[in-house]
Amino acid sequence: MSEIAVLCDDVAEAVARAIKELVGTQKGNRVVGMGADGTPSKLIDIVAEDAALEILASSGIDMKVVSEEKGSFAYGERPEFTVVLDPLDGTFNATRNIPFYSVSIAIGNNDLSDIRYAKVFNLANGTDFTASLGEGALCNGQEIQTSSVNRMQDLTVATYAYDNGWDVLKRLGRQVRRIRTLGSVALELCYVASGSFDAFVDTRNRLRMMDVAAGLLIIKEAGGKVTDGQGNLPNGELSVIDRVNIVASNGIIHTALEKTIGL
Amino acid sequence: MSEIAVLCDDVAEAVARAIKELVGTQKGNRVVGMGADGTPSKLIDIVAEDAALEILASSGIDMKVVSEEKGSFAYGERPEFTVVLDPLDGTFNATRNIPFYSVSIAIGNNDLSDIRYAKVFNLANGTDFTASLGEGALCNGQEIQTSSVNRMQDLTVATYAYDNGWDVLKRLGRQVRRIRTLGSVALELCYVASGSFDAFVDTRNRLRMMDVAAGLLIIKEAGGKVTDGQGNLPNGELSVIDRVNIVASNGIIHTALEKTIGL
Repeated sequence: MSEIAVLCDDVAEAVARAIKELVGTQKGNRVVGMGADGTPSKLIDIVAEDAALEILASSGIDMKVVSEEKGSFAYGERPEFTVVLDPLDGTFNATRNIPFYSVSIAIGNNDLSDIRYAKVFNLANGTDFTASLGEGALCNGQEIQTSSVNRMQDLTVATYAYDNGWDVLKRLGRQVRRIRTLGSVALELCYVASGSFDAFVDTRNRLRMMDVAAGLLIIKEAGGKVTDGQGNLPNGELSVIDRVNIVASNGIIHTALEKTIGL
Repeated sequence: MSEIAVLCDDVAEAVARAIKELVGTQKGNRVVGMGADGTPSKLIDIVAEDAALEILASSGIDMKVVSEEKGSFAYGERPEFTVVLDPLDGTFNATRNIPFYSVSIAIGNNDLSDIRYAKVFNLANGTDFTASLGEGALCNGQEIQTSSVNRMQDLTVATYAYDNGWDVLKRLGRQVRRIRTLGSVALELCYVASGSFDAFVDTRNRLRMMDVAAGLLIIKEAGGKVTDGQGNLPNGELSVIDRVNIVASNGIIHTALEKTIGL
Protein backbone atom coordinates (compact mmCIF):
# COMPACT_ATOMS: atom_id res chain seq x y z
CA MET A 1 0.00 0.00 0.00
CA SER A 2 1.33 3.45 -0.91
CA GLU A 3 2.43 5.99 1.68
CA ILE A 4 -0.58 8.13 0.74
CA ALA A 5 -3.07 5.28 1.18
CA VAL A 6 -1.64 4.51 4.62
CA LEU A 7 -1.82 8.18 5.60
CA CYS A 8 -5.49 8.38 4.55
CA ASP A 9 -6.30 5.17 6.45
CA ASP A 10 -4.71 6.63 9.56
CA VAL A 11 -6.72 9.85 9.19
CA ALA A 12 -10.00 7.93 8.85
CA GLU A 13 -9.28 5.77 11.88
CA ALA A 14 -8.28 8.78 13.97
CA VAL A 15 -11.47 10.67 13.10
CA ALA A 16 -13.65 7.62 13.81
CA ARG A 17 -12.03 7.23 17.24
CA ALA A 18 -12.15 10.93 18.08
CA ILE A 19 -15.86 11.54 17.39
CA LYS A 20 -17.24 8.28 18.77
CA GLU A 21 -18.36 9.66 22.13
CA LEU A 22 -19.92 12.77 20.54
CA VAL A 23 -22.16 10.98 18.02
CA GLY A 24 -25.85 11.50 18.80
CA THR A 25 -25.16 14.03 21.57
CA GLN A 26 -26.25 17.61 22.25
CA LYS A 27 -22.67 18.34 23.23
CA GLY A 28 -21.33 17.39 19.78
CA ASN A 29 -23.98 19.59 18.17
CA ARG A 30 -22.95 22.78 20.04
CA VAL A 31 -21.82 25.63 17.78
CA VAL A 32 -18.31 26.61 18.85
CA GLY A 33 -17.16 28.93 16.07
CA MET A 34 -17.26 29.77 12.38
CA GLY A 35 -15.43 27.61 9.83
CA ALA A 36 -13.15 28.88 7.05
CA ASP A 37 -15.91 27.87 4.61
CA GLY A 38 -18.27 30.39 6.23
CA THR A 39 -20.56 27.89 7.94
CA PRO A 40 -20.95 27.43 11.72
CA SER A 41 -18.63 24.84 13.27
CA LYS A 42 -20.06 22.30 15.68
CA LEU A 43 -17.90 20.80 18.42
CA ILE A 44 -17.98 17.41 16.65
CA ASP A 45 -16.63 19.08 13.45
CA ILE A 46 -13.73 20.63 15.34
CA VAL A 47 -12.89 17.39 17.15
CA ALA A 48 -12.93 15.52 13.81
CA GLU A 49 -10.67 18.07 12.12
CA ASP A 50 -8.23 18.21 15.02
CA ALA A 51 -7.86 14.41 14.96
CA ALA A 52 -7.28 14.40 11.19
CA LEU A 53 -4.76 17.25 11.26
CA GLU A 54 -2.81 15.66 14.09
CA ILE A 55 -2.19 12.64 11.85
CA LEU A 56 -1.24 14.79 8.85
CA ALA A 57 1.09 17.02 10.89
CA SER A 58 2.87 14.11 12.56
CA SER A 59 3.51 12.33 9.23
CA GLY A 60 6.52 14.58 8.60
CA ILE A 61 5.46 14.97 4.94
CA ASP A 62 5.39 18.50 3.49
CA MET A 63 1.87 19.16 2.19
CA LYS A 64 -0.81 21.77 1.59
CA VAL A 65 -4.11 21.25 3.37
CA VAL A 66 -7.56 22.53 2.41
CA SER A 67 -9.96 21.76 5.23
CA GLU A 68 -13.44 22.81 6.23
CA GLU A 69 -12.78 24.55 9.52
CA LYS A 70 -9.17 25.79 9.37
CA GLY A 71 -9.13 26.64 5.64
CA SER A 72 -5.95 26.51 3.48
CA PHE A 73 -2.47 26.19 4.98
CA ALA A 74 0.70 24.11 4.65
CA TYR A 75 2.91 21.81 6.65
CA GLY A 76 6.58 22.30 5.67
CA GLU A 77 8.25 24.32 2.92
CA ARG A 78 8.05 22.02 -0.12
CA PRO A 79 4.53 20.58 -0.36
CA GLU A 80 4.43 17.24 -2.19
CA PHE A 81 0.64 17.34 -2.63
CA THR A 82 -2.58 18.98 -1.44
CA VAL A 83 -4.93 17.22 0.96
CA VAL A 84 -8.57 18.22 0.45
CA LEU A 85 -10.27 17.24 3.66
CA ASP A 86 -13.83 17.12 4.90
CA PRO A 87 -13.27 15.76 8.40
CA LEU A 88 -17.01 15.15 8.93
CA ASP A 89 -19.40 15.13 5.98
CA GLY A 90 -22.95 14.75 7.28
CA THR A 91 -22.63 16.53 10.61
CA PHE A 92 -26.41 16.66 11.00
CA ASN A 93 -26.65 12.86 10.70
CA ALA A 94 -23.78 12.34 13.12
CA THR A 95 -25.35 14.53 15.79
CA ARG A 96 -28.74 12.80 15.31
CA ASN A 97 -27.41 9.23 15.29
CA ILE A 98 -28.43 8.61 11.68
CA PRO A 99 -25.83 6.09 10.44
CA PHE A 100 -24.59 7.96 7.44
CA TYR A 101 -21.68 10.36 7.96
CA SER A 102 -18.17 10.18 6.64
CA VAL A 103 -14.67 11.53 6.41
CA SER A 104 -13.67 12.51 2.86
CA ILE A 105 -9.99 12.81 1.88
CA ALA A 106 -8.63 13.64 -1.59
CA ILE A 107 -4.98 13.98 -2.62
CA GLY A 108 -4.26 16.33 -5.53
CA ASN A 109 -2.25 19.34 -6.66
CA ASN A 110 -4.03 22.61 -7.31
CA ASP A 111 -7.23 21.89 -9.19
CA LEU A 112 -10.32 19.72 -8.67
CA SER A 113 -9.47 18.02 -11.99
CA ASP A 114 -6.10 16.63 -10.86
CA ILE A 115 -7.04 14.49 -7.82
CA ARG A 116 -4.96 11.28 -7.77
CA TYR A 117 -6.06 9.44 -4.62
CA ALA A 118 -9.39 9.47 -2.78
CA LYS A 119 -10.97 7.95 0.29
CA VAL A 120 -14.49 8.25 1.72
CA PHE A 121 -15.04 6.33 4.95
CA ASN A 122 -18.51 5.87 6.52
CA LEU A 123 -17.77 6.61 10.16
CA ALA A 124 -21.01 4.97 11.30
CA ASN A 125 -20.32 1.48 9.96
CA GLY A 126 -16.78 1.39 8.53
CA THR A 127 -17.69 1.09 4.84
CA ASP A 128 -14.56 2.24 3.00
CA PHE A 129 -14.43 3.65 -0.54
CA THR A 130 -11.06 4.36 -2.20
CA ALA A 131 -9.68 5.12 -5.68
CA SER A 132 -6.28 5.72 -7.25
CA LEU A 133 -6.00 7.56 -10.57
CA GLY A 134 -5.93 4.98 -13.38
CA GLU A 135 -6.26 2.03 -11.04
CA GLY A 136 -10.00 1.73 -10.44
CA ALA A 137 -12.20 2.16 -7.40
CA LEU A 138 -12.74 -0.12 -4.41
CA CYS A 139 -15.32 -0.61 -1.65
CA ASN A 140 -13.91 -2.48 1.32
CA GLY A 141 -11.11 -3.66 -0.97
CA GLN A 142 -13.43 -5.06 -3.68
CA GLU A 143 -13.55 -3.46 -7.15
CA ILE A 144 -16.72 -1.45 -7.77
CA GLN A 145 -18.42 -0.25 -10.95
CA THR A 146 -21.22 2.14 -11.75
CA SER A 147 -24.66 0.71 -12.62
CA SER A 148 -25.85 -0.36 -16.07
CA VAL A 149 -29.30 1.24 -15.83
CA ASN A 150 -30.08 2.86 -19.17
CA ARG A 151 -33.63 4.21 -18.96
CA MET A 152 -34.60 7.43 -17.19
CA GLN A 153 -37.67 5.78 -15.63
CA ASP A 154 -35.49 3.21 -13.86
CA LEU A 155 -33.05 5.65 -12.23
CA THR A 156 -32.40 6.08 -8.53
CA VAL A 157 -31.04 9.61 -8.08
CA ALA A 158 -29.56 11.21 -4.98
CA THR A 159 -30.27 14.92 -5.05
CA TYR A 160 -30.39 18.14 -3.05
CA ALA A 161 -32.72 20.94 -3.92
CA TYR A 162 -32.69 23.79 -1.48
CA ASP A 163 -32.99 27.39 -2.62
CA ASN A 164 -34.04 27.66 -6.26
CA GLY A 165 -33.69 24.00 -7.15
CA TRP A 166 -37.28 22.86 -6.58
CA ASP A 167 -38.25 23.12 -10.24
CA VAL A 168 -35.17 21.08 -11.22
CA LEU A 169 -36.23 18.46 -8.68
CA LYS A 170 -39.78 18.42 -10.01
CA ARG A 171 -38.61 17.90 -13.61
CA LEU A 172 -36.25 15.18 -12.46
CA GLY A 173 -38.61 13.51 -10.01
CA ARG A 174 -41.32 13.03 -12.61
CA GLN A 175 -38.93 11.18 -14.92
CA VAL A 176 -37.10 8.82 -12.59
CA ARG A 177 -37.88 5.86 -10.33
CA ARG A 178 -36.57 7.05 -6.97
CA ILE A 179 -35.25 10.25 -5.38
CA ARG A 180 -33.08 9.95 -2.30
CA THR A 181 -31.48 12.55 0.01
CA LEU A 182 -29.36 10.92 2.69
CA GLY A 183 -27.36 13.84 4.05
CA SER A 184 -23.72 12.97 3.27
CA VAL A 185 -22.80 14.08 -0.26
CA ALA A 186 -19.40 12.36 -0.13
CA LEU A 187 -21.04 8.99 0.59
CA GLU A 188 -23.87 9.52 -1.89
CA LEU A 189 -21.28 10.10 -4.64
CA CYS A 190 -19.66 6.79 -3.63
CA TYR A 191 -23.04 5.07 -3.94
CA VAL A 192 -23.09 6.21 -7.57
CA ALA A 193 -19.63 4.66 -7.95
CA SER A 194 -20.75 1.36 -6.45
CA GLY A 195 -23.95 1.21 -8.50
CA SER A 196 -26.21 1.50 -5.44
CA PHE A 197 -27.48 4.75 -6.95
CA ASP A 198 -27.48 5.53 -10.67
CA ALA A 199 -26.90 9.28 -10.43
CA PHE A 200 -26.30 12.29 -8.18
CA VAL A 201 -27.56 15.79 -8.96
CA ASP A 202 -26.79 18.95 -7.02
CA THR A 203 -27.18 22.19 -8.94
CA ARG A 204 -27.52 24.54 -5.98
CA ASN A 205 -24.05 25.97 -6.68
CA ARG A 206 -23.31 25.29 -3.02
CA LEU A 207 -21.10 22.20 -3.03
CA ARG A 208 -17.55 22.77 -1.84
CA MET A 209 -14.34 21.13 -3.03
CA MET A 210 -14.08 19.30 0.29
CA ASP A 211 -17.51 17.70 -0.24
CA VAL A 212 -16.86 16.35 -3.71
CA ALA A 213 -13.13 16.02 -4.49
CA ALA A 214 -12.80 12.43 -3.26
CA GLY A 215 -16.18 11.22 -4.54
CA LEU A 216 -15.55 12.51 -8.06
CA LEU A 217 -12.36 10.48 -8.51
CA ILE A 218 -14.07 7.41 -7.04
CA ILE A 219 -16.94 7.73 -9.56
CA LYS A 220 -14.61 8.29 -12.52
CA GLU A 221 -12.45 5.30 -11.56
CA ALA A 222 -15.62 3.18 -11.22
CA GLY A 223 -16.58 3.99 -14.83
CA GLY A 224 -18.97 6.85 -14.24
CA LYS A 225 -19.18 10.39 -15.60
CA VAL A 226 -19.16 13.72 -13.80
CA THR A 227 -20.02 17.16 -15.18
CA ASP A 228 -21.22 20.54 -13.96
CA GLY A 229 -24.69 19.84 -15.40
CA GLN A 230 -23.91 21.71 -18.61
CA GLY A 231 -21.55 19.21 -20.21
CA ASN A 232 -18.32 20.56 -18.74
CA LEU A 233 -15.89 18.74 -16.49
CA PRO A 234 -15.99 20.17 -12.96
CA ASN A 235 -12.86 22.13 -12.13
CA GLY A 236 -11.71 24.92 -9.89
CA GLU A 237 -8.94 25.78 -7.51
CA LEU A 238 -8.69 23.54 -4.45
CA SER A 239 -9.90 26.13 -1.93
CA VAL A 240 -12.49 26.45 0.79
CA ILE A 241 -14.35 29.19 -1.04
CA ASP A 242 -15.15 27.94 -4.56
CA ARG A 243 -18.52 26.30 -5.12
CA VAL A 244 -19.50 23.79 -7.82
CA ASN A 245 -22.53 22.14 -9.41
CA ILE A 246 -22.29 18.38 -9.85
CA VAL A 247 -24.16 15.96 -12.08
CA ALA A 248 -22.68 12.48 -11.69
CA SER A 249 -23.95 9.27 -13.26
CA ASN A 250 -23.13 5.83 -14.55
CA GLY A 251 -22.26 7.62 -17.82
CA ILE A 252 -24.89 5.74 -19.83
CA ILE A 253 -27.74 8.14 -19.08
CA HIS A 254 -25.65 11.27 -18.56
CA THR A 255 -26.83 13.25 -21.59
CA ALA A 256 -30.50 12.45 -20.98
CA LEU A 257 -30.06 13.40 -17.34
CA GLU A 258 -28.49 16.77 -18.17
CA LYS A 259 -31.28 17.44 -20.67
CA THR A 260 -33.96 16.68 -18.04
CA ILE A 261 -32.30 18.95 -15.50
CA GLY A 262 -32.25 21.67 -18.16
CA LEU A 263 -29.70 24.12 -16.73
CA MET B 1 -40.89 -7.82 29.69
CA SER B 2 -44.31 -8.79 28.38
CA GLU B 3 -44.97 -11.87 26.26
CA ILE B 4 -45.66 -9.60 23.29
CA ALA B 5 -42.38 -7.68 23.68
CA VAL B 6 -40.43 -10.95 23.81
CA LEU B 7 -42.24 -12.24 20.74
CA CYS B 8 -41.41 -9.05 18.78
CA ASP B 9 -37.76 -9.26 19.88
CA ASP B 10 -37.59 -12.83 18.66
CA VAL B 11 -39.09 -11.85 15.30
CA ALA B 12 -36.57 -9.01 14.84
CA GLU B 13 -33.62 -11.24 15.69
CA ALA B 14 -34.84 -13.99 13.38
CA VAL B 15 -35.24 -11.59 10.44
CA ALA B 16 -31.80 -10.05 11.05
CA ARG B 17 -30.20 -13.50 11.05
CA ALA B 18 -32.13 -14.74 8.01
CA ILE B 19 -31.35 -11.86 5.63
CA LYS B 20 -27.72 -11.29 6.63
CA GLU B 21 -26.15 -13.19 3.73
CA LEU B 22 -28.51 -11.60 1.17
CA VAL B 23 -27.83 -7.95 2.04
CA GLY B 24 -26.11 -6.13 -0.83
CA THR B 25 -26.45 -9.06 -3.23
CA GLN B 26 -27.99 -9.50 -6.69
CA LYS B 27 -29.45 -12.77 -5.43
CA GLY B 28 -31.44 -11.03 -2.70
CA ASN B 29 -32.75 -8.51 -5.25
CA ARG B 30 -34.22 -11.16 -7.60
CA VAL B 31 -37.98 -10.87 -8.12
CA VAL B 32 -39.54 -14.19 -7.12
CA GLY B 33 -43.26 -13.43 -7.08
CA MET B 34 -45.98 -10.91 -6.36
CA GLY B 35 -46.85 -9.89 -2.80
CA ALA B 36 -50.35 -9.70 -1.34
CA ASP B 37 -49.92 -5.91 -1.36
CA GLY B 38 -49.62 -5.96 -5.17
CA THR B 39 -45.91 -5.13 -5.38
CA PRO B 40 -43.17 -7.49 -6.67
CA SER B 41 -41.53 -9.65 -4.00
CA LYS B 42 -37.75 -9.91 -3.93
CA LEU B 43 -36.05 -13.02 -2.57
CA ILE B 44 -34.81 -11.04 0.45
CA ASP B 45 -38.43 -9.99 1.24
CA ILE B 46 -39.61 -13.60 1.17
CA VAL B 47 -36.72 -14.82 3.32
CA ALA B 48 -37.43 -12.04 5.85
CA GLU B 49 -41.15 -12.85 6.00
CA ASP B 50 -40.57 -16.62 6.29
CA ALA B 51 -38.22 -16.06 9.23
CA ALA B 52 -40.72 -13.77 10.97
CA LEU B 53 -43.70 -16.07 10.42
CA GLU B 54 -41.80 -19.10 11.69
CA ILE B 55 -41.37 -17.33 15.03
CA LEU B 56 -45.02 -16.24 15.16
CA ALA B 57 -46.32 -19.68 14.21
CA SER B 58 -44.15 -21.52 16.73
CA SER B 59 -45.21 -19.23 19.61
CA GLY B 60 -48.41 -21.23 20.03
CA ILE B 61 -50.41 -17.98 20.47
CA ASP B 62 -53.60 -17.59 18.44
CA MET B 63 -53.29 -14.42 16.35
CA LYS B 64 -54.23 -12.70 13.11
CA VAL B 65 -51.36 -11.66 10.85
CA VAL B 66 -51.32 -8.90 8.23
CA SER B 67 -48.06 -9.16 6.32
CA GLU B 68 -46.64 -7.71 3.13
CA GLU B 69 -46.13 -10.85 1.07
CA LYS B 70 -48.63 -13.41 2.39
CA GLY B 71 -51.45 -10.97 3.18
CA SER B 72 -54.03 -11.53 5.96
CA PHE B 73 -54.45 -14.87 7.72
CA ALA B 74 -54.64 -16.35 11.22
CA TYR B 75 -52.87 -18.81 13.44
CA GLY B 76 -55.40 -20.69 15.63
CA GLU B 77 -59.13 -20.22 16.19
CA ARG B 78 -59.28 -17.49 18.85
CA PRO B 79 -56.93 -14.68 17.85
CA GLU B 80 -55.73 -12.64 20.85
CA PHE B 81 -54.40 -9.81 18.68
CA THR B 82 -53.40 -8.81 15.15
CA VAL B 83 -49.74 -8.59 14.13
CA VAL B 84 -49.13 -5.98 11.42
CA LEU B 85 -45.80 -6.95 9.94
CA ASP B 86 -43.44 -5.40 7.44
CA PRO B 87 -40.67 -8.01 7.46
CA LEU B 88 -38.32 -5.75 5.48
CA ASP B 89 -39.03 -2.03 5.14
CA GLY B 90 -36.44 -0.50 2.80
CA THR B 91 -35.79 -3.45 0.50
CA PHE B 92 -33.99 -1.20 -1.98
CA ASN B 93 -31.51 -0.08 0.70
CA ALA B 94 -30.97 -3.64 1.91
CA THR B 95 -30.14 -4.91 -1.57
CA ARG B 96 -27.79 -1.93 -2.17
CA ASN B 97 -26.01 -2.11 1.17
CA ILE B 98 -27.32 1.28 2.31
CA PRO B 99 -27.58 0.99 6.10
CA PHE B 100 -31.28 1.90 6.62
CA TYR B 101 -33.67 -1.03 6.45
CA SER B 102 -35.84 -2.37 9.17
CA VAL B 103 -38.42 -4.83 10.39
CA SER B 104 -41.63 -3.17 11.56
CA ILE B 105 -44.03 -4.99 13.92
CA ALA B 106 -47.24 -3.60 15.40
CA ILE B 107 -49.68 -5.38 17.72
CA GLY B 108 -53.30 -4.26 17.53
CA ASN B 109 -56.86 -5.37 17.01
CA ASN B 110 -58.71 -4.36 13.85
CA ASP B 111 -57.93 -0.71 13.15
CA LEU B 112 -54.82 1.41 12.66
CA SER B 113 -56.02 3.55 15.59
CA ASP B 114 -55.88 0.73 18.19
CA ILE B 115 -52.21 -0.39 18.03
CA ARG B 116 -50.94 -1.20 21.55
CA TYR B 117 -47.34 -2.34 21.05
CA ALA B 118 -44.82 -1.42 18.37
CA LYS B 119 -41.27 -2.25 17.39
CA VAL B 120 -39.06 -0.96 14.55
CA PHE B 121 -35.62 -2.51 14.40
CA ASN B 122 -32.86 -1.22 12.09
CA LEU B 123 -31.50 -4.45 10.66
CA ALA B 124 -28.30 -2.76 9.47
CA ASN B 125 -27.06 -1.60 12.87
CA GLY B 126 -29.40 -2.94 15.56
CA THR B 127 -30.99 0.36 16.61
CA ASP B 128 -34.23 -0.66 18.32
CA PHE B 129 -37.36 1.51 18.69
CA THR B 130 -40.29 0.29 20.80
CA ALA B 131 -43.48 1.69 22.35
CA SER B 132 -46.30 0.41 24.53
CA LEU B 133 -49.63 2.22 24.62
CA GLY B 134 -49.62 4.68 27.53
CA GLU B 135 -46.09 3.80 28.59
CA GLY B 136 -43.91 5.96 26.34
CA ALA B 137 -41.42 5.19 23.59
CA LEU B 138 -37.87 3.87 23.81
CA CYS B 139 -34.76 3.74 21.61
CA ASN B 140 -32.35 1.03 22.70
CA GLY B 141 -34.12 1.01 26.05
CA GLN B 142 -33.81 4.78 26.66
CA GLU B 143 -36.87 7.02 26.71
CA ILE B 144 -37.23 9.21 23.61
CA GLN B 145 -39.18 12.39 22.91
CA THR B 146 -40.03 14.37 19.83
CA SER B 147 -38.10 17.58 19.12
CA SER B 148 -38.91 21.05 20.44
CA VAL B 149 -38.35 22.91 17.16
CA ASN B 150 -41.09 25.49 16.78
CA ARG B 151 -40.32 27.47 13.62
CA MET B 152 -41.02 26.23 10.08
CA GLN B 153 -37.64 27.50 8.86
CA ASP B 154 -35.80 25.28 11.34
CA LEU B 155 -37.54 22.00 10.47
CA THR B 156 -35.90 18.84 9.17
CA VAL B 157 -38.61 16.91 7.31
CA ALA B 158 -38.49 13.39 5.90
CA THR B 159 -40.72 13.20 2.85
CA TYR B 160 -41.64 11.21 -0.24
CA ALA B 161 -43.03 12.86 -3.31
CA TYR B 162 -43.48 10.53 -6.23
CA ASP B 163 -46.47 10.84 -8.54
CA ASN B 164 -48.37 14.09 -8.01
CA GLY B 165 -46.57 15.22 -4.88
CA TRP B 166 -43.90 17.45 -6.43
CA ASP B 167 -45.83 20.65 -5.84
CA VAL B 168 -46.38 19.69 -2.20
CA LEU B 169 -42.65 19.10 -1.90
CA LYS B 170 -41.86 22.45 -3.49
CA ARG B 171 -44.18 24.33 -1.10
CA LEU B 172 -42.69 22.45 1.83
CA GLY B 173 -39.07 22.61 0.70
CA ARG B 174 -39.12 26.38 0.39
CA GLN B 175 -40.30 26.79 3.99
CA VAL B 176 -38.12 24.36 5.91
CA ARG B 177 -34.45 23.85 6.73
CA ARG B 178 -33.81 20.34 5.42
CA ILE B 179 -35.59 17.70 3.34
CA ARG B 180 -34.50 14.09 3.71
CA THR B 181 -35.56 10.87 1.97
CA LEU B 182 -33.81 7.84 3.42
CA GLY B 183 -35.81 4.94 2.01
CA SER B 184 -37.29 3.23 5.10
CA VAL B 185 -40.54 4.91 6.15
CA ALA B 186 -40.79 2.86 9.36
CA LEU B 187 -37.36 4.11 10.49
CA GLU B 188 -37.98 7.68 9.35
CA LEU B 189 -41.14 7.79 11.50
CA CYS B 190 -39.01 6.62 14.45
CA TYR B 191 -36.55 9.43 13.76
CA VAL B 192 -39.46 11.86 14.28
CA ALA B 193 -40.17 10.09 17.58
CA SER B 194 -36.55 10.42 18.72
CA GLY B 195 -36.29 14.07 17.66
CA SER B 196 -33.68 13.36 14.97
CA PHE B 197 -36.22 14.66 12.46
CA ASP B 198 -38.95 17.16 13.28
CA ALA B 199 -41.59 15.87 10.88
CA PHE B 200 -42.54 13.27 8.26
CA VAL B 201 -44.81 13.99 5.29
CA ASP B 202 -46.11 11.46 2.77
CA THR B 203 -49.27 12.46 0.94
CA ARG B 204 -48.94 10.12 -2.03
CA ASN B 205 -51.83 8.00 -0.72
CA ARG B 206 -49.52 5.02 -1.13
CA LEU B 207 -48.40 4.15 2.39
CA ARG B 208 -49.63 0.81 3.66
CA MET B 209 -50.64 -0.20 7.18
CA MET B 210 -47.53 -2.37 7.43
CA ASP B 211 -45.28 0.63 6.70
CA VAL B 212 -46.73 2.92 9.34
CA ALA B 213 -48.60 1.02 12.09
CA ALA B 214 -45.59 0.63 14.39
CA GLY B 215 -44.05 4.05 13.70
CA LEU B 216 -47.30 5.90 14.45
CA LEU B 217 -47.60 4.46 17.98
CA ILE B 218 -43.91 5.16 18.61
CA ILE B 219 -44.38 8.83 17.59
CA LYS B 220 -47.54 9.27 19.66
CA GLU B 221 -45.89 7.72 22.73
CA ALA B 222 -42.88 10.03 22.23
CA GLY B 223 -45.16 13.07 22.42
CA GLY B 224 -45.69 13.70 18.70
CA LYS B 225 -48.79 14.13 16.59
CA VAL B 226 -49.98 12.19 13.56
CA THR B 227 -52.74 13.08 11.10
CA ASP B 228 -53.77 12.36 7.52
CA GLY B 229 -52.63 15.86 6.49
CA GLN B 230 -56.16 17.28 6.80
CA GLY B 231 -56.43 17.32 10.57
CA ASN B 232 -57.90 13.82 11.01
CA LEU B 233 -56.38 10.93 12.93
CA PRO B 234 -55.20 8.20 10.55
CA ASN B 235 -57.40 5.12 10.71
CA GLY B 236 -58.44 2.20 8.58
CA GLU B 237 -58.81 -1.55 8.74
CA LEU B 238 -55.57 -3.44 9.35
CA SER B 239 -55.29 -4.94 5.87
CA VAL B 240 -52.73 -5.19 3.09
CA ILE B 241 -54.88 -3.16 0.71
CA ASP B 242 -55.79 0.12 2.42
CA ARG B 243 -53.55 3.10 1.79
CA VAL B 244 -53.03 6.18 3.97
CA ASN B 245 -51.55 9.68 3.93
CA ILE B 246 -49.39 10.57 6.92
CA VAL B 247 -48.27 13.90 8.35
CA ALA B 248 -46.34 13.31 11.57
CA SER B 249 -44.55 15.89 13.65
CA ASN B 250 -43.37 16.93 17.09
CA GLY B 251 -46.89 18.34 17.53
CA ILE B 252 -45.69 21.90 18.06
CA ILE B 253 -45.61 22.82 14.37
CA HIS B 254 -48.32 20.43 13.17
CA THR B 255 -50.95 22.99 12.19
CA ALA B 256 -48.44 25.18 10.34
CA LEU B 257 -47.10 22.11 8.58
CA GLU B 258 -50.55 21.00 7.43
CA LYS B 259 -51.27 24.52 6.20
CA THR B 260 -48.04 24.61 4.18
CA ILE B 261 -48.77 21.24 2.59
CA GLY B 262 -52.20 22.58 1.68
CA LEU B 263 -54.13 19.36 0.92
